[in-house]
Amino acid sequence: MAPKKVLDPENINENIKKLVYAVRGELYIRASELQKEGKKIIFTNVGNPHALGQKPLTFPRQVVALCQAPFLMDDLNVDILFPADAIARAKHYLSYTSGGLGAYSDSRGLPGIRKDVADFIMRRDGYPSDPELIFLTDGASKGVTHLLNILIRNENDGVLCPIPQYPLYSATIQLVGGTLVPYYLSEEAGWGLDVKEMRSQVLEARKKGITVRGLVFINPGNPTGQCLSEANLRELIQFCYEEHIVLLADEVYQQNIYQDERPFISAKKVLMDMGPPYSNNVELASFHTVSKGYWGECGQRGAYFELTNMHPKTVDELYKVASIALSPNVPGQIFVGLMVNPPKPGDISYPKFAEESKAILDSLRRRAHMMTDGFNSCRNVTCNFTEGAMYSFPKIKLPAAAIAAAKRAGKAPDVFYCLKLLEATGISTVPGSGFGQKEGTFHVRTTILPSEDDIPEVMRMFKTFNEDFMAQYEGPQSRL
Amino acid sequence: MAPKKVLDPENINENIKKLVYAVRGELYIRASELQKEGKKIIFTNVGNPHALGQKPLTFPRQVVALCQAPFLMDDLNVDILFPADAIARAKHYLSYTSGGLGAYSDSRGLPGIRKDVADFIMRRDGYPSDPELIFLTDGASKGVTHLLNILIRNENDGVLCPIPQYPLYSATIQLVGGTLVPYYLSEEAGWGLDVKEMRSQVLEARKKGITVRGLVFINPGNPTGQCLSEANLRELIQFCYEEHIVLLADEVYQQNIYQDERPFISAKKVLMDMGPPYSNNVELASFHTVSKGYWGECGQRGAYFELTNMHPKTVDELYKVASIALSPNVPGQIFVGLMVNPPKPGDISYPKFAEESKAILDSLRRRAHMMTDGFNSCRNVTCNFTEGAMYSFPKIKLPAAAIAAAKRAGKAPDVFYCLKLLEATGISTVPGSGFGQKEGTFHVRTTILPSEDDIPEVMRMFKTFNEDFMAQYEGPQSRL
Repeated sequence: MAPKKVLDPENINENIKKLVYAVRGELYIRASELQKEGKKIIFTNVGNPHALGQKPLTFPRQVVALCQAPFLMDDLNVDILFPADAIARAKHYLSYTSGGLGAYSDSRGLPGIRKDVADFIMRRDGYPSDPELIFLTDGASKGVTHLLNILIRNENDGVLCPIPQYPLYSATIQLVGGTLVPYYLSEEAGWGLDVKEMRSQVLEARKKGITVRGLVFINPGNPTGQCLSEANLRELIQFCYEEHIVLLADEVYQQNIYQDERPFISAKKVLMDMGPPYSNNVELASFHTVSKGYWGECGQRGAYFELTNMHPKTVDELYKVASIALSPNVPGQIFVGLMVNPPKPGDISYPKFAEESKAILDSLRRRAHMMTDGFNSCRNVTCNFTEGAMYSFPKIKLPAAAIAAAKRAGKAPDVFYCLKLLEATGISTVPGSGFGQKEGTFHVRTTILPSEDDIPEVMRMFKTFNEDFMAQYEGPQSRL
Repeated sequence: MAPKKVLDPENINENIKKLVYAVRGELYIRASELQKEGKKIIFTNVGNPHALGQKPLTFPRQVVALCQAPFLMDDLNVDILFPADAIARAKHYLSYTSGGLGAYSDSRGLPGIRKDVADFIMRRDGYPSDPELIFLTDGASKGVTHLLNILIRNENDGVLCPIPQYPLYSATIQLVGGTLVPYYLSEEAGWGLDVKEMRSQVLEARKKGITVRGLVFINPGNPTGQCLSEANLRELIQFCYEEHIVLLADEVYQQNIYQDERPFISAKKVLMDMGPPYSNNVELASFHTVSKGYWGECGQRGAYFELTNMHPKTVDELYKVASIALSPNVPGQIFVGLMVNPPKPGDISYPKFAEESKAILDSLRRRAHMMTDGFNSCRNVTCNFTEGAMYSFPKIKLPAAAIAAAKRAGKAPDVFYCLKLLEATGISTVPGSGFGQKEGTFHVRTTILPSEDDIPEVMRMFKTFNEDFMAQYEGPQSRL
């Protein structure tokens, strides 16, 4: 017999073994296998717009291409292929670097880009922002990891997370050895946050010896799509003040809003509006990225976080952690710069940029409606409207016979349903259990990202599958 | 009094507080301050070639620029600015993606690039490599973090690291809560590895209840610049086999070789050459990057690691950890693809590519000699030749009066020396204590990356400073 490996699965870091990352979990792996076998797969498991056909915005790509190949700007013919404002912008960003895109930047990112981010936040919120408290990161997940890592000292430190939640949070809390303290969102109340629920979960956690030190919220919601009201955010901040909790604001979908009643409002702005003792005490980290919005530049890994009310020495400690990886990728930093300072009216590239971004956002808004309406037309399926973000999270009322069949197959009922959906249609979703859901309820998360032309067919395939599934486990539609 | 912060520096993760990252430590921070005040700083603290004027290779930048702006390839004028083989290569890499550079790839990286890496390893070593065991990462540090994270379960798990070592290792071992077990390199023996020393350190560690599970080595060495012989690598592998230790091979400088006696040989090749029971048992992870070599594309964050003899389930667990960050940056992956498959003789772009890369390597070789000779011409300074990598690591014999002055200033003697050097000359180095050194010896790490034209002046400034320093603390040069 071969000797046991040093890295035998029995002998590795337990936190890694325990963590679950559903977005790239069993469903994704099965979908990848089917794709290898030649089946056409519609990947709606991750918010990855370009993978489903969204075209990149032209101007930012022109600028970054020129930054990658600055020698083009020494060629007299460069203006045949590039507009003058893209050339000017590329030169501007290169002046932020010492050595172009190939040189490490400061571990927090290029000072010039951090200044541009601070200016953007100032314009957005009406309150000053300090570039020294802005960190650029390789995607927002990296920033979240840094914050959770510094916050969590051991398994008795807890972080409140919404249920359903994006599994980045549960996975990272597990990885760094802390405890997730759930607070349930109310599906009936449009997935709103309920501070009473949070308070009772904190009390419950304390009884178990857990110190709740952080609270994650996602606005607009993932996977739940709700947009939080200002009143709701005020309650949340008051709660964090009273309970001495750091607020982690996942605001990566701030450009993805599909209704007009509740425009995006940042936690920073609400906090500052509230004045002392909130505005000068509540510790806040807010995350934003180029992967979402109308940009969808997921593969570039560009993001930032802003710190508010943090102890200066703690900021230094975060700087030290960021330094281990030396530098976030520099092209991604340029994308962040472009996101916070897009072309303005009067710029050569403005009309095209405005047209492209409006077309994407308008289409996402239509798709949000098409998918919600589609799900609500299906037997045993109900779905809140996607007010923001990129996801639809319908509730599926699974018949008892289906639950029993799932049990026989050794699968969670929603995993069973999603696997059947995948095999029948090629639609790759994530089961609600990957995000958490109230005991006895079952959900499916899809993105709203299939192209607008494809959605009717995707929804038709879903409806047919669902009808067949329900007929198999519940009998023919009684209302027919 | 303001209430104590949740993230008060007293109340954060202890492992973060304890970790030290010298490359971006006190010296770097002081250098940044001086730069802000207008002083000209020569940053030799990090191996960051483009920051010191090295120009990027043209062909890879052309290819990546086209991948960023694929619409250029629909323009009939594209061939005015781009050669045909760059266009063909860009199309080829885009065919590896689903949605271009803006889409997340698989968490291990694009399958096409991983296949190209495996082919490169096969050509380099003469042994097959499996793309499923290759992970692309945002810089090699990210891969090292994954491996140390899965290896270390608690503070009783130890990892052997060379002293002097690159502080990524000490910092990451501290971050994930393990114990660094030092093995000292022998400066007198050209910084060679001594297996007897390792064995005694393992015994020592065991007495303290530490299980040594991993061994890091860096070849060519950082900061020490030595190139390991095949015989030395065989001893190392035999030792890891006998002691049941995973080998972490930092081989990021494999293209940076400045002597002909010991060309680079990979740990994978030596392992496979040794045959069973070594070749089928010793667990190995090997790291490589686009940040070093003649590429120096640090800011792009492109790298890979290859796993050998790992348990398949452990590979799955690593995949899960990589999935938390969803995807390494895709432009960086394209750079890895280009590094492992550069232009070949007969390609349009080959002559230029060959000329550019040869010029860089030839110059680095000359610079390695210039710096070593320069240091050895200084009073109280001795320096082993930089056989490979990008660093010079001279030993400074500090006079007793300087050590006493450092003590009065509350600084380690080598930090004191480096700060004085910085203030006097603007040369930003890293003190040997940041890498570890034998008790009572003092070193300075510089890169050999200042441009060839600048090096004589840099060495002249160093020599003058050093002479003044020694004269101040030891009196005038006695041999004069």
